[in-house]
Amino acid sequence: MRSNPAGMTLTDATPAFVDALAAQLPEDTLRAPEARYLEEPRGRYFGQAGVVALPRNVEEVSTIVAACHVAHVPVVPYGGGTGLVGGQVKTEGAAPVLLSLERMNAIRGVYPLENVLVAEAGAILAQVQEAAEAADRLFPLSLGSEGSARIGGNLATNAGGVNVLRYGNARDLCLGLEAVLPTGEIWHGLTRLRKDNTGYDLRNLLVGAEGTLGVITAAALKLYACPRAQGAAIMAVRDVEAALSLLALARDLMGETVSAFELLSQQGFAFLRETLPQVRLPFEEDPEWSVLVDVGLQSGAETALEGLFEAALEAGLVTDGVIAQSAAQRADFWTLRESIPIANKHIGSVASHDISLPLGALPAFIAEAGEKIRAQGPFRINCFGHVGDGNLHFNVFPPRGGNRHDYDDIRAEVSRSVHDLVKAYGGSFSAEHGVGRLKVADLQTYGDPSRLAAMRAIKAALDPHGIMNPGAVL
Amino acid sequence: MRSNPAGMTLTDATPAFVDALAAQLPEDTLRAPEARYLEEPRGRYFGQAGVVALPRNVEEVSTIVAACHVAHVPVVPYGGGTGLVGGQVKTEGAAPVLLSLERMNAIRGVYPLENVLVAEAGAILAQVQEAAEAADRLFPLSLGSEGSARIGGNLATNAGGVNVLRYGNARDLCLGLEAVLPTGEIWHGLTRLRKDNTGYDLRNLLVGAEGTLGVITAAALKLYACPRAQGAAIMAVRDVEAALSLLALARDLMGETVSAFELLSQQGFAFLRETLPQVRLPFEEDPEWSVLVDVGLQSGAETALEGLFEAALEAGLVTDGVIAQSAAQRADFWTLRESIPIANKHIGSVASHDISLPLGALPAFIAEAGEKIRAQGPFRINCFGHVGDGNLHFNVFPPRGGNRHDYDDIRAEVSRSVHDLVKAYGGSFSAEHGVGRLKVADLQTYGDPSRLAAMRAIKAALDPHGIMNPGAVL
Repeated sequence: MRSNPAGMTLTDATPAFVDALAAQLPEDTLRAPEARYLEEPRGRYFGQAGVVALPRNVEEVSTIVAACHVAHVPVVPYGGGTGLVGGQVKTEGAAPVLLSLERMNAIRGVYPLENVLVAEAGAILAQVQEAAEAADRLFPLSLGSEGSARIGGNLATNAGGVNVLRYGNARDLCLGLEAVLPTGEIWHGLTRLRKDNTGYDLRNLLVGAEGTLGVITAAALKLYACPRAQGAAIMAVRDVEAALSLLALARDLMGETVSAFELLSQQGFAFLRETLPQVRLPFEEDPEWSVLVDVGLQSGAETALEGLFEAALEAGLVTDGVIAQSAAQRADFWTLRESIPIANKHIGSVASHDISLPLGALPAFIAEAGEKIRAQGPFRINCFGHVGDGNLHFNVFPPRGGNRHDYDDIRAEVSRSVHDLVKAYGGSFSAEHGVGRLKVADLQTYGDPSRLAAMRAIKAALDPHGIMNPGAVL
Repeated sequence: MRSNPAGMTLTDATPAFVDALAAQLPEDTLRAPEARYLEEPRGRYFGQAGVVALPRNVEEVSTIVAACHVAHVPVVPYGGGTGLVGGQVKTEGAAPVLLSLERMNAIRGVYPLENVLVAEAGAILAQVQEAAEAADRLFPLSLGSEGSARIGGNLATNAGGVNVLRYGNARDLCLGLEAVLPTGEIWHGLTRLRKDNTGYDLRNLLVGAEGTLGVITAAALKLYACPRAQGAAIMAVRDVEAALSLLALARDLMGETVSAFELLSQQGFAFLRETLPQVRLPFEEDPEWSVLVDVGLQSGAETALEGLFEAALEAGLVTDGVIAQSAAQRADFWTLRESIPIANKHIGSVASHDISLPLGALPAFIAEAGEKIRAQGPFRINCFGHVGDGNLHFNVFPPRGGNRHDYDDIRAEVSRSVHDLVKAYGGSFSAEHGVGRLKVADLQTYGDPSRLAAMRAIKAALDPHGIMNPGAVL
């Protein structure tokens, strides 16, 4: 018997427990975990082995969770394993049941007339996108790991990505859930309704709870009409403030058809030139700041982007720009954008930050944070990301020729100074990646005390034995 | 000492309690309630008197709620009093504190570059809309009672209205909240962030909880670019199925710029002719079914609607149509739409239902529900509303010359048969009005048992003495 961080006493998934549970389930539902279940992409955490459960349907999930509830055995829900904050690996305390949804990967239904798709939690995000596309519809959630991330994990972490500006986070794309609550009870909430005002919003409580309040087993998801005319441009902006004015102008001219608005920095281009020279860059001289604007209209995307560029030039917001002349060139722009995190990985960051700020605070924040970081050492900063959402990936790198590990002792201090400044500007220390295990201390430091108390009360009320993903979030 | 429905023992707001609380607050914060605080629009409930509290800021709200928490005195949060399900009036048990937010009605800030507005809970919805418009932005929440409903109440009930199709419910328009929790603690969650993945979604738990989990005191709200070219059309459709195909076609041609898509029935036109002959109707012969389509583009609304009508005519979806040729004619169309509930009131319904269904289920539901109702009596049915959201106002009226009160004894049976059928089709018995006191029994009958258990656990965890709006929702 060991205590989890919430002070609950949890029990190992012992061979006796596993045998007893196995007897209630079809053969081959429980297994010893392969290494892939115990690793995470950033290599910071290594999970405890325990046992892997591979249920085929919600009733089996219920059986597993109910047994864990009774025996006080921890449960770690497992999606695609792509999370960046260690939410998927339990590193200490009682040996857990790793509950992988990978066998529950069916698309249960597509309803083009309703703009709804129902998928099981283990469906890979790209498969959900493809199923929508096959019905001439768009499922707009899109992010780097979409080829391996599973929709249940996307929902549990309220994933963001590149289309949030127009279509919202994973939360905004979810109409209903089927889930197993921490007691093992099944919640049949898989509604395809657009409006349902009948009590507390359990759906949004499970979305973003990172598996600590239950296991999502299926979801009803919103689809959209496919934009018929997509276009993209990269525009060099005068400064960060001009980038925000450009966004306002774009919306004024094109309404909600602006799908993505991504900030690119001179440092980001430099890292691409250094580590991925095959990536095509739009300008001969890299501008200090530029933005990738992506639009999806029903017609005339190129004309609309030309109109935007001309109006922005006249207003003194932009200094240069390239408008994609083909789908291939638009794809090139996105390859550039998606290569930035890869280049960052090649360089090796001292500290990376997934932060959000009120849009109006961005210019002052970027300037002040840069000064603070450079006062702490000879760092290079690559500040980029979903600026239309106020979401920056503010990553700090060693000087040219330096090694990230030379700064191991200053990493915490660097992050602390970034997050302190984020707090001062009314921002968040985790915009889209979540809390997981990496940012538990940050949540305690920066979270609102009343909200934290309410979160703890909700956790204790729904999961009285503290079995669900212990050590994550709280 | 009396018990509330959750089994909690609550105490009257006695003169001694009121005096002690008054001593902690500025003069004139507590008053004897005028009649308007004790009534509700449908005249079904009359509230207990107790005392009215009129705080000026969140600290005063905190003082009031904390005192009630300690003394186990019930608190009924009060917005504009426009709710249709009795959520604003406590009818039995201990005498409450009616906590009216009417003095907290400031627009705290407008951030056009961020598309954000921060309003106090007591701001009237129309004032929020006007403050946005003054900054050349749109706050899209729009509903019949917008001249007196207050934004805090709109959020507490997750209000819907006519623009949900494009912009979502009140829930979807809220970025952050300031609120007082049932213990009196203040939650400072008034973030203007688009992305913030740092723990449980307390915001969406308070939104739609109808004042049972705390008091919303201010909100950060989403604004949008103003559509520059608005247009509207009324099109007679072949049948309800064709209405849904027309919606899909409209979205395919115009994307998310379809702002509203409202179903109109022949019976609704007949009621207008009977009770409001001054309202202009679009067709000489009222079609069985028609829809009001409203669009907001940046240019060319009329052309887009003409294109839609032609394509729909070719596809055999529509039989006739009128496209507004001016802003005045568009306003006329909306006057027609908004006159329908008034005409209904003149006729006097036997039973009204605010239901939602999966879009694909609408045609079969409408047919089957009509048969069921007509088998129960010589009723007239006016089925209309936000069909694009799957939200119908399915209202049942006495025969011509009959009186609603002649059917008082069959009302419950009629509603039960409608709601049973809604459940069978996977729908909801309350799409946008909420549960309040009117539908508490419906929630117990039709709600998912696991979800209800989770709701009760959350209520007990956050409001251990059960003081917040007792008798509503649960």
